[in-house]
Amino acid sequence: MKVTIKDIANICRVSAGTVDRALNNRTGISEKTRKKVLKVAEEMNYQPDYTARSLVIGKTMTIGVVLFDLYNRSFAQLLNAIELKARELGYFVYITLSDKKPENEINCIDYLVNRKVDGIILFTVNQGEQFESYLSKFDTPIITIFNYISEKWEYVGIRERQAMKEAVDYIAGEGYQKFIYISPPLAYLGKTNIYTQEERLSGFYEGLKRNDITSNPLIVKNSEYIKELENITFSKDVKVAIVCSTDLYALEVMNYLKKKGLNIPEQVGVMGFDDIDMLKYVTPRLTTVKYPIDEIGKRSVESMVNKINFGDFISTPLLDYEIIKGESI
Amino acid sequence: MKVTIKDIANICRVSAGTVDRALNNRTGISEKTRKKVLKVAEEMNYQPDYTARSLVIGKTMTIGVVLFDLYNRSFAQLLNAIELKARELGYFVYITLSDKKPENEINCIDYLVNRKVDGIILFTVNQGEQFESYLSKFDTPIITIFNYISEKWEYVGIRERQAMKEAVDYIAGEGYQKFIYISPPLAYLGKTNIYTQEERLSGFYEGLKRNDITSNPLIVKNSEYIKELENITFSKDVKVAIVCSTDLYALEVMNYLKKKGLNIPEQVGVMGFDDIDMLKYVTPRLTTVKYPIDEIGKRSVESMVNKINFGDFISTPLLDYEIIKGESI
Repeated sequence: MKVTIKDIANICRVSAGTVDRALNNRTGISEKTRKKVLKVAEEMNYQPDYTARSLVIGKTMTIGVVLFDLYNRSFAQLLNAIELKARELGYFVYITLSDKKPENEINCIDYLVNRKVDGIILFTVNQGEQFESYLSKFDTPIITIFNYISEKWEYVGIRERQAMKEAVDYIAGEGYQKFIYISPPLAYLGKTNIYTQEERLSGFYEGLKRNDITSNPLIVKNSEYIKELENITFSKDVKVAIVCSTDLYALEVMNYLKKKGLNIPEQVGVMGFDDIDMLKYVTPRLTTVKYPIDEIGKRSVESMVNKINFGDFISTPLLDYEIIKGESI
Repeated sequence: MKVTIKDIANICRVSAGTVDRALNNRTGISEKTRKKVLKVAEEMNYQPDYTARSLVIGKTMTIGVVLFDLYNRSFAQLLNAIELKARELGYFVYITLSDKKPENEINCIDYLVNRKVDGIILFTVNQGEQFESYLSKFDTPIITIFNYISEKWEYVGIRERQAMKEAVDYIAGEGYQKFIYISPPLAYLGKTNIYTQEERLSGFYEGLKRNDITSNPLIVKNSEYIKELENITFSKDVKVAIVCSTDLYALEVMNYLKKKGLNIPEQVGVMGFDDIDMLKYVTPRLTTVKYPIDEIGKRSVESMVNKINFGDFISTPLLDYEIIKGESI
């Protein structure tokens, strides 16, 4: 049975107010009484009622998180980092998954606001005026990560564009003349928020320009990208680089190329993006872009807690990346 | 500014009680008034106060989850399944991570109980009388998954022992005569709850016996298991099978064997356990044991919600597995 403040008060023969003073370390009672109350509370395994308490102090000490899913390795790692940092700072984490569906995401945000989370870390698929006006209705502070909405919203992300540009520098430096770019999410351009994918594509184009690659790249925005590759004849005369906007596409591409007996990287080069931890078991080692996913989780929580406690976010500059030189380029 | 029931009542020129009736679909008001109240509530973007509400109905509509971490692919997949099913049933998920530390886990459980979650899904590293007596103090229903505590606690798991036994059947059937078994968590035997690992080991022994393998296996309980392998000379005369209690160990072992130029499976066979999704990118394809991780998440939520609403868990038989015949045995 749930032990209440009243139960403790009865046993200690003091008022409920005195018990409350002792438990919440407030003044107005003797040290002897305080000790007695705390001892009885411990013996009776008294647990403070946070639900009632949160009504009083106006905080629930929880941070809500909206992610796409956890099947993506990077998201799981991100959530792990968020939970660790939040717990360190005394906060709990509500996890909600949108499955990349805009209407699901709205439900997630609605629920989190209704549950009175103290802040929301949002990896959004939504964008546009209507969505911003929807978000503006809430008092709950929001930090967007990866997918940027507008300057109105606090943002923690990485230098995606610069990273892809530098990846192209590296590939061009290795003598590749023709480029294929694979990014199925680009099919959603203008429909959902695919900011990170757009940035990577812009960086790709800027990289081509900077390296005077004049041959037009093939941009594959199709989830059937392996089928698209089946229509291409790879010759030994021209080195082709297949640039993938995430490691998972790159791994699928490598599986296909290996099955076709094509040599990586001699005939076809493959570039990924993410540096997921499983790469160390795959041969050849994928060349890719590494970025500090844990840091994004950590920084967004720190900034949120600062906002909750002191009213301001901690402005976070775009985080840096690193080209991982594997064996596939 | 937060819209309250009183605000809506003022605008509609009705009492707060009438607004409450309309919002919660209770009888005692006219259809016309109900429609008017709902319209105004929507226009004003009224959000029900779940924190206050949970005090009244005595439920928070949240399920707490205690896992080790999300770096392990299977745990991320499990949490994803839990979140999906919970949301479908109208529940929210609090995620807490113990990092496999018994004292962290106690903190997680304490917090979840204090936050008044309606139930806890627990992947525990704790065990023993003291821990059970600690758990018994709470009214919150608990479902244990994977690591079994005792018959006192509801449990959802898989036929681990049977799975490993059948894996040995398969390996022995392929002509392997010597066995190495790798399971670093066994170093914690008697210290923390490693039930699944113990079951797998028991199944391994039972499999050896059933297949009349008389040569003593080498059991490696060391996290430096690759170093242990370095001391072993693999000859071409005796086929050795390295049985790993999870895929991640098996992938490390395959990396080592490949580096040493040993042929898999001709000289050394490797068996995993988990069938993580990344295996499809690794050659040779790892032979492993697949089990329905999503189903464990789904079933545990369904059982918990039944307990919350109707007082009883849905008893779940141990879930089944499948031997995935890859190329490594």
